[in-house]
Amino acid sequence: MSGSNPAFAKTAIIGVGLLGGSLAMALRQHRLTDRIVGCGRSEENLCIAQSRGIIDAWTQNPAEAVQDADIVVLATPIEAFVPLAASFRSHLKSGSLVTDVGSVKGALVGKIEALMPDGVAFVGGHPIAGGEEAGCAAARADLFAGKRCIITPMPTSDRTACATVIALWRAVGMRTEEMDPFAHDTLYGLVSHFPHLVAYALVNTAVGSDERAIDYAGSGFRDATRIALSPPDLWRGIALANRDAVISAARVFRKELDSIIFAVEKNDASALEVLLHKAQKARNDISGKTVDEE
Amino acid sequence: MSGSNPAFAKTAIIGVGLLGGSLAMALRQHRLTDRIVGCGRSEENLCIAQSRGIIDAWTQNPAEAVQDADIVVLATPIEAFVPLAASFRSHLKSGSLVTDVGSVKGALVGKIEALMPDGVAFVGGHPIAGGEEAGCAAARADLFAGKRCIITPMPTSDRTACATVIALWRAVGMRTEEMDPFAHDTLYGLVSHFPHLVAYALVNTAVGSDERAIDYAGSGFRDATRIALSPPDLWRGIALANRDAVISAARVFRKELDSIIFAVEKNDASALEVLLHKAQKARNDISGKTVDEE
Repeated sequence: MSGSNPAFAKTAIIGVGLLGGSLAMALRQHRLTDRIVGCGRSEENLCIAQSRGIIDAWTQNPAEAVQDADIVVLATPIEAFVPLAASFRSHLKSGSLVTDVGSVKGALVGKIEALMPDGVAFVGGHPIAGGEEAGCAAARADLFAGKRCIITPMPTSDRTACATVIALWRAVGMRTEEMDPFAHDTLYGLVSHFPHLVAYALVNTAVGSDERAIDYAGSGFRDATRIALSPPDLWRGIALANRDAVISAARVFRKELDSIIFAVEKNDASALEVLLHKAQKARNDISGKTVDEE
Repeated sequence: MSGSNPAFAKTAIIGVGLLGGSLAMALRQHRLTDRIVGCGRSEENLCIAQSRGIIDAWTQNPAEAVQDADIVVLATPIEAFVPLAASFRSHLKSGSLVTDVGSVKGALVGKIEALMPDGVAFVGGHPIAGGEEAGCAAARADLFAGKRCIITPMPTSDRTACATVIALWRAVGMRTEEMDPFAHDTLYGLVSHFPHLVAYALVNTAVGSDERAIDYAGSGFRDATRIALSPPDLWRGIALANRDAVISAARVFRKELDSIIFAVEKNDASALEVLLHKAQKARNDISGKTVDEE
């Protein structure tokens, strides 16, 4: 691919939240687009985005938002992607490009690609950036800088469109990597989607056992459960969209946790230390590496 | 209790690690002691502690360390507490006070108290402070400032000694709270000891499934597993010393996680959102509160 930055006369951001809003800001900062139209369900959020200069205009009608757009970015909760694509497909400009920032790829990218009319390409992407905040008020232009972005083309995907999506994310500072959509889901099921469910379960364990327990939680518990602050509707959608990987990670996790608890039950200090030491070593190995936010 | 600070001519710190070293530094900073003798297994660590002025002198012989000491602080991994107390008990000065900084109290405080000779009081304490670092090199005088310390006297404990231990921790900036030793263990099993085991299991799940998976971990996974960096020998000891509470927390956690995974399996979006929302709300309720480090 060439080293030059892509340029889009009109960009449509569908879902102007933390990711969509930050991408709008980054596109503008890096002069990658002339005009940004936002679309979403919350009029209040869209008004905030416009008043902050994150978007130039907004509409609550996706079909109107995508009209004449050179690039359309799906940045809503993932369960809305397919209904949205179905609703705006006939309004897409020929030669335009559709992409997304969703945390689950798998079968979803094939479903969206299948909805694209002739002359419009879809290429999926997952910028590993974000956080537990929601809404465009938390958006910032540098959210993506230095982080990783996984691009998930299919064998059928348009290579020129793929190169454009890669160039887009690189232009806003990301390290890009191509990956099979299903391999992506297995991987992020393990290191992101399932761990989120564990964090929610840990909080429910503390409050379910003793209402006041959580008040005694120290920084260890707080860090371990920070991701339980993430929006439940978003993560409900992610967990359901990546069911197989989440269920399979849960199966492995139960075995790993059972080994540890079994060693505790049997008072087996040496087995327990081996298990804890293995984890500490692996966790330590990534301590010095670049951190992607999520 | 009176508002005046305690004063100790000689302090013995048994185990000059992160907690023991930080307490030595805090005692000196607040002029609560004239002289500090350190004791431990690692000659290198003791030399570092002395060269940094954390301790005035050191010995590897606990019986020698406690001689003439007005206060003795057990700050080694907890499994060493009882053997240590047994080894130095006949060398304790009449009228002196023994305390500890261990994360598990329960039956342990009774065992240590039973070993004390006439005229020597034991009162257990658990400063909720620390972190994943080990050794006196990570020690700092302000480690305890603003954090919580749980004091766990028994009905048989000497009240004057208890007041002195409370005054000691308050003098180094802690908020103190008295609690039954077993109630303490149930509570910290839930919000600290078991969550550490979950973090180790989460790391083992990622590396056990796919060696390279952990390289893709974002900040969510890193925060969730920061406590898996904690020293395995320390947490092995804590988990085994608080077996009942850890096993019981594991039982509740399995049910909570199973409810979430069951909702994922059944594709039950509304049940899943209820479970995630309950956790998010409870976690959010403590977000603004003072954080104890651990």
